[in-house]
Amino acid sequence: MLKRLLLLWTLAISSATAATIDRVEPPSWWVGMQSSKLQLLVKGDQIGSLAPQLDYPGVTISASRAGDDRDYLFIDLKISASAQAGTLPLRFMQGNKEVASYDYPLQKRAAGSAQRKGFSPADVIYLVMPDRFANGDPQNDKVDGMLEGPDRDNIGGRHGGDLQGIIDRLGYIEDMGFTQLWLNPVRENNMPAYSYHGYAMTDFYRIDPRYGSNELYFTLSREARKRGIGLIMDVVLNHSGSEHWWARQPPFKDWINNGNRFVPTTHRRETLHDPYGVNADRRGFTDGWFVNTMPDLNQRNPYFANYLIQNSIWWVESAGLSGIRVDTYPYSDKRFLAEWSRRVMAEYPRLNIVGEEWTTNPALLAYWQKGSHTHDGYVSELPSVFDFPLQEAVVKGLTAEEDQWNGLVYIYRSLVNDFLYGDAYNLVIFPDNHDKSRIYTQLGEDKALWRMAMAFFATTRGIPQIYSGTEILQANPDSNDHGVIRADFPGGWDGDTVDAFSGKNLPQDVREAQEYLRELLNWRKTSAPIHKGKLAHYAPADGLYVYFRFHGKEKVMVVLNKNDETTEVNGKDYPEMLKGFSRGTDALSGKIHSLKRFSVPARSALILELAP
Amino acid sequence: MLKRLLLLWTLAISSATAATIDRVEPPSWWVGMQSSKLQLLVKGDQIGSLAPQLDYPGVTISASRAGDDRDYLFIDLKISASAQAGTLPLRFMQGNKEVASYDYPLQKRAAGSAQRKGFSPADVIYLVMPDRFANGDPQNDKVDGMLEGPDRDNIGGRHGGDLQGIIDRLGYIEDMGFTQLWLNPVRENNMPAYSYHGYAMTDFYRIDPRYGSNELYFTLSREARKRGIGLIMDVVLNHSGSEHWWARQPPFKDWINNGNRFVPTTHRRETLHDPYGVNADRRGFTDGWFVNTMPDLNQRNPYFANYLIQNSIWWVESAGLSGIRVDTYPYSDKRFLAEWSRRVMAEYPRLNIVGEEWTTNPALLAYWQKGSHTHDGYVSELPSVFDFPLQEAVVKGLTAEEDQWNGLVYIYRSLVNDFLYGDAYNLVIFPDNHDKSRIYTQLGEDKALWRMAMAFFATTRGIPQIYSGTEILQANPDSNDHGVIRADFPGGWDGDTVDAFSGKNLPQDVREAQEYLRELLNWRKTSAPIHKGKLAHYAPADGLYVYFRFHGKEKVMVVLNKNDETTEVNGKDYPEMLKGFSRGTDALSGKIHSLKRFSVPARSALILELAP
Repeated sequence: MLKRLLLLWTLAISSATAATIDRVEPPSWWVGMQSSKLQLLVKGDQIGSLAPQLDYPGVTISASRAGDDRDYLFIDLKISASAQAGTLPLRFMQGNKEVASYDYPLQKRAAGSAQRKGFSPADVIYLVMPDRFANGDPQNDKVDGMLEGPDRDNIGGRHGGDLQGIIDRLGYIEDMGFTQLWLNPVRENNMPAYSYHGYAMTDFYRIDPRYGSNELYFTLSREARKRGIGLIMDVVLNHSGSEHWWARQPPFKDWINNGNRFVPTTHRRETLHDPYGVNADRRGFTDGWFVNTMPDLNQRNPYFANYLIQNSIWWVESAGLSGIRVDTYPYSDKRFLAEWSRRVMAEYPRLNIVGEEWTTNPALLAYWQKGSHTHDGYVSELPSVFDFPLQEAVVKGLTAEEDQWNGLVYIYRSLVNDFLYGDAYNLVIFPDNHDKSRIYTQLGEDKALWRMAMAFFATTRGIPQIYSGTEILQANPDSNDHGVIRADFPGGWDGDTVDAFSGKNLPQDVREAQEYLRELLNWRKTSAPIHKGKLAHYAPADGLYVYFRFHGKEKVMVVLNKNDETTEVNGKDYPEMLKGFSRGTDALSGKIHSLKRFSVPARSALILELAP
Repeated sequence: MLKRLLLLWTLAISSATAATIDRVEPPSWWVGMQSSKLQLLVKGDQIGSLAPQLDYPGVTISASRAGDDRDYLFIDLKISASAQAGTLPLRFMQGNKEVASYDYPLQKRAAGSAQRKGFSPADVIYLVMPDRFANGDPQNDKVDGMLEGPDRDNIGGRHGGDLQGIIDRLGYIEDMGFTQLWLNPVRENNMPAYSYHGYAMTDFYRIDPRYGSNELYFTLSREARKRGIGLIMDVVLNHSGSEHWWARQPPFKDWINNGNRFVPTTHRRETLHDPYGVNADRRGFTDGWFVNTMPDLNQRNPYFANYLIQNSIWWVESAGLSGIRVDTYPYSDKRFLAEWSRRVMAEYPRLNIVGEEWTTNPALLAYWQKGSHTHDGYVSELPSVFDFPLQEAVVKGLTAEEDQWNGLVYIYRSLVNDFLYGDAYNLVIFPDNHDKSRIYTQLGEDKALWRMAMAFFATTRGIPQIYSGTEILQANPDSNDHGVIRADFPGGWDGDTVDAFSGKNLPQDVREAQEYLRELLNWRKTSAPIHKGKLAHYAPADGLYVYFRFHGKEKVMVVLNKNDETTEVNGKDYPEMLKGFSRGTDALSGKIHSLKRFSVPARSALILELAP
């Protein structure tokens, strides 16, 4: 103990008499949070050698420690319930001498912030890759200090899309019937190349200036909310960009997995569940890197864990988010994930968060959703996961030749597995996303199947997510290259010949598809059975899949007819579900059908609102 | 009440003064069973109108009732713990007059009967289709009163194999290393055609005379046990043959599902688990018939439930069985199945029972195994199920082109799902069976892959089951017809040119395969890590799948090398598992390898017993 004191004293003496503070993160915080704790990361030349002090009513320093790299100091604050918003006068002492100070903003929360309601089955999420949607501000395509400039001819380069482009198209998004907006990451990705996708973050607290600014992101959130559209942030807990300042100068020796050297992940997510697995395999999955430009973060380091948790909360609070999408969810340390989900949900009990676990094995996927039974007692507070198994089942189910064992029955079987999930109604369901071949391509560019897929995702249980471009039949017929899958949305750039926002020069069949989805989603907005109702279905037979959604006295019947001819539906085949109903109104055409017998055209979906 | 008494009195008066008893089932019972209850089914002309009486120390009639058909009477006996073996003098009264009597045998149990140990992971099960294995007694090929005679030229006909044929070949079975014998059903199937498979039973208490007799079945069991081989009975709870006497004259109106008319089952086993399912679909699965010659039994009728439960117990006790295989398990009523498994296991707590649930979805399969978590709180006491998912994974895993996402990794992934099972070590694993294409055919008649499959099934977790003919590479290259899959075992018939029992005229490569399996299984007999050990494995990589079995200080290492060339294994890639071991002895050749580095020949399995 004496030895350690002596060492600290020596360091204090030897350091400079004035110190600079380069960064404090989170850059601000709030009074009135559920947790009274806040841990600041302070970076500055030899700041770790200084002792922090604070004199502010209701806020105290409970602990502090330097990183392994003494340019870092971590300060634990305790913010009491009685603390008022204001500026915390942090002082950094060398012995009795103040050698630096920092005014830390402690803000007031927006009214109702903690009780905000996240995205839900009443919503449809629109997924936008911001670089590829609309270029609202060509001035920010090239920004001083940002390593990569625009190059629209390069499918892996930056094309100039930005937040202003999205703000300008909120009317289109609203009109289409979308009520939530998930943007692929928009935080700074100051990487030399291939930075447009946003997953190689170099600053966790800054919107990339080529997309706009933090303020513009907050504006987008406000403007969207005015139109009834929530904003979902794409959060990456597993990795950063290699150019991130703390990846280049890590606070702790164990900040980055594999000693900050590139070792690829095995992608063997099964290791986390394997009753027979070895530690080496678990480490190979969790600690391996995605690519050599994305260091894999070690969330087992408790300071890093706090950093990431607070970062997520900071954005929810600052930007008024309606939810979070978490990238590469299980690749992070699983104990950390439990803690992350617990603490975020403790601050926002009604928020929604969807984790990406790219597996088609529902038993592995369910593990991560709150409320699922877990074989090892693992407790997750994550409310939602993406339903990859259903996505695969829908494509296979619609494209397979129909017989007793194949076809629509795949979709039925996938839904049966819902007994594994804590809350299957809260799963995010999707025909495709930015990482997958376009649904129109997956369905063999078959417009009838495309419509059936849209109708299905709009009416089955779950929260539909539609990737922008899906509504205009974007396709990737000859390539699975991400650049092709993420082709620019036509009309987002000055001079685009085709404008899918206005419909200008859009081919007739594409306009019809867009119109179909628009009508479908706008009807969906009004349907309580879809938003809140239970699902019941009949095992597919004879090329028909028939299911129901019902809430109170309202009931919707959906028939998917995969037959090549018009098929008659006989109401007496569905007595349990049709009891008390005699008519059905086509949700899209308004046509009224008798439930005794009605016809469904070849290869189509019919949605009926039932009446006595 | 008065009205009912009057009715009974009228019936009693109107019936004949002497009655005959055609059948009493079970035909005998035992003192000292765990359950004190016994329910007799008595069949005789208008027997239901009579009142049973019994005067025997420790045994009382607690209830009786007629069937809906008054030719049936059900008598509930209570057998106290103090009751002695003997003959129960049952009397059947019309008013005060005895009009019939029956001497019912109440026997003493064999010593240790209740504590018999069932088949276990220390065993390998040999599956034999009795009609197709060996004809030991040509005299019983054709039996008076049996509707179908022999016709060896008809692949769907009876070929004459019998119990004596099996008894005569027990030496071969023992020598091959098998320690359990599962016969496809041998109870009476007195159907006009296609009766050889045995699943259309016409008498639940009688061995089909074309196979032998009850006594010969008991002899087989005794003779097998002398060689260390247990006998597993194939039990069918779901259906009977349409010629069964109680199917032709059902005791109750609800004895047979769908009003004793043929309605095919949908085979939609998912309905039992479906959170969104409708009753009509559940009934369509459970109550539907397999084929029109197999009435679907209604186990919801409590008398039928008792009948089936007692029938299973009767055979275990009478024949000294080491286990039961249950056909088409989930097609029976699931509440009945819970009760059946509970009551059988209550009588024989260490018995093993394996249910056939033909699904490759482990989440559905696990539901039926004791100890699994079930989504609806269903409690099954069934100790084992057949591992259909692993069977599929092994075939796909061995035949697929090897890369990061395909090949051996399928096998690994299938095993990871074991977290779903109550006891994965007790699953019955198998390369094929009497209903599936031959494994040699499934593997493209590739002998190297066949050996790898045999080595895998002999060493991974579970209880291997080998279908007779697999050891001699039986194949069905051009047909999936059951008759082809169930081709006669060569050498089982007088005059067979090829004799696979003695090896006479068996091609060299077939003899080598047979010899390989013989050596493998005889080694397996000696290996405690395989019998009792845990499994640990490494995720497959570079065409290698490496796993370990270990028990106490004993450890076995298995390497499956799917590469087209000899591949070097580097011990330092497996530090967690090889710590403390330096040498490995090839379980088959006895060759000693250094664990630092050793070679595994192209497309082969190497099994090493490790030593310090």
